[in-house]
Amino acid sequence: MNQKIILQSRPNQTASLDNFRYQESGIESLQDGQVLVLNRWLSLDPYVRGRMSERKSYAPPMALGDVVIGEAIGEVISSNSHLFKTGDQVIGMLGWQTHAVMNESSIKPIASLAIPETWLLGAAGMTGITAWIGMMEICEPKNHETILVTSAAGSVGGIAGQLAKLQGAKVIGIAGSEAKCKYVMDHLNFDQCLSYHAADWQDVLKMSVPNGINCLFDNVGGNVFDCLLEKMSPFSRIAICGLIAEGLADHFHQINLRALLANRILIQGFIVSDHISRWREIQNQLVDLLLDKKIHVDEKITEGLKNAPQAFINMLEGRYFGKQLIRLS
Amino acid sequence: MNQKIILQSRPNQTASLDNFRYQESGIESLQDGQVLVLNRWLSLDPYVRGRMSERKSYAPPMALGDVVIGEAIGEVISSNSHLFKTGDQVIGMLGWQTHAVMNESSIKPIASLAIPETWLLGAAGMTGITAWIGMMEICEPKNHETILVTSAAGSVGGIAGQLAKLQGAKVIGIAGSEAKCKYVMDHLNFDQCLSYHAADWQDVLKMSVPNGINCLFDNVGGNVFDCLLEKMSPFSRIAICGLIAEGLADHFHQINLRALLANRILIQGFIVSDHISRWREIQNQLVDLLLDKKIHVDEKITEGLKNAPQAFINMLEGRYFGKQLIRLS
Repeated sequence: MNQKIILQSRPNQTASLDNFRYQESGIESLQDGQVLVLNRWLSLDPYVRGRMSERKSYAPPMALGDVVIGEAIGEVISSNSHLFKTGDQVIGMLGWQTHAVMNESSIKPIASLAIPETWLLGAAGMTGITAWIGMMEICEPKNHETILVTSAAGSVGGIAGQLAKLQGAKVIGIAGSEAKCKYVMDHLNFDQCLSYHAADWQDVLKMSVPNGINCLFDNVGGNVFDCLLEKMSPFSRIAICGLIAEGLADHFHQINLRALLANRILIQGFIVSDHISRWREIQNQLVDLLLDKKIHVDEKITEGLKNAPQAFINMLEGRYFGKQLIRLS
Repeated sequence: MNQKIILQSRPNQTASLDNFRYQESGIESLQDGQVLVLNRWLSLDPYVRGRMSERKSYAPPMALGDVVIGEAIGEVISSNSHLFKTGDQVIGMLGWQTHAVMNESSIKPIASLAIPETWLLGAAGMTGITAWIGMMEICEPKNHETILVTSAAGSVGGIAGQLAKLQGAKVIGIAGSEAKCKYVMDHLNFDQCLSYHAADWQDVLKMSVPNGINCLFDNVGGNVFDCLLEKMSPFSRIAICGLIAEGLADHFHQINLRALLANRILIQGFIVSDHISRWREIQNQLVDLLLDKKIHVDEKITEGLKNAPQAFINMLEGRYFGKQLIRLS
């Protein structure tokens, strides 16, 4: 029996529990080239929120009734593919379910690594590679530059800031609470962190970036983006990774192109899945940094598929630090 | 006697004749390392408008009473420098005047070239290099892509569009009149050109870019930018070269960051003077294209320093095609 979470309805603004439904169903039989995977670890990621909505975006929305999409790690328990055998560990978009029937081309074998396998869903996987593309290839932080990272306590932001620190930059995080900021500074080694709920955060920011911001790695958009935009320095870069503060509605930012021109500012939206060809190369570099303990990783593990919707909502509401995982089996 | 045009007052919105004043003055004696240049050709360029205003920008404003800045070509008629001798042809920021006392480090000798020397102020100089940086390095047009160029009949836009054509792109110009559009298509080889004064230009545009715009090379900003922004395709680039439609006042554009992220759009403001180290290399490539007649050049020559203010204003108002020059002597 497959246990799964399907998309029951689309969120209006924020995702809620009634957008999800738990279901059980039989497991279809395998076609040629297919394998049956017993899912073990499910990654929770903010991009899934976007796919729950119907609006046109870079990827098609999920259909109502579909298993919720998600990257996961599992074990092949039955194979009709000559590429995989029973017992193989694999990674792929296995979904919010306990069993996945997958085409052999849609999963990848997990190489034996010296790091915990769950890191392949986080710092050594999509999360880390997202941080790498935005920070190392768009921001390109230089020694002594000032780099701002929003959602600094989140899984992507936390790694992005640590990568910038490794380049010798001064790294300032923005997060949603003092507790998160303490975590970001104590565990992730950021130089400073500001809670945007503090009444005076913009005043503190002004003092903290006397020469402006050389790069903004942004996960949130919204008013925080607008405040930071005003502080961008000449030749600065803005990597738009996510817009979690903007919800579903269209949100227009007032942008002064003359300031952008006078300061030669670069703004670049990016999506990690465009960089599949670079995956292994970047992953290898992240694994080296992880093995050298140069990147600190925190994981929050929630037990059981049925708890995935609530954990996902909590994550979107910013209730957790670090990488969010569901243990499925 | 030096004849010069000084900045008499700052423009409110648009530059007008009373912002300029003609003056005569004696010529200061040369210090060590200085030369006296008899100016022959003065380049008129839109960036000078920005320097007439007091607002903070990438370069300091001119002071009231200063000779108006401008790039020019001249001949050394007296030298206190071992680097230059009488009769040498030089280029530099010689200003709106008949004689310039220059430090040897602030001028460059003109190499003997197989092109008209005035082209060094245009297609083979700052104008062409500006077009090159924005088009070849930010837009990076690919075969069959659709490239939009605003101020298509202007000196920078005209070259930018021709460079894109040479890469196999479909090039659509935007200009301020049907006459300009005819010039852009007949002489500059653009595939299409739309006058933004035509009531239906946005409808025509929509038909002309069924797959969206792959790159926008923008010289104007304003409402034209907003219309074009909506048509940007996935992975598109926007090179912000100028904002001539925006005048002095702050102009804020409503920009939807979600669309920018979903389409992985790049926006980059750029200024040619940041690329001094690449000057000679790019210039050589432009000269080769010019010698091969792959770039068409038009120059509008106005006679005499005293006519420079009116010619400059006419240029800002879009009354001319191609590169604007003043013959000084």
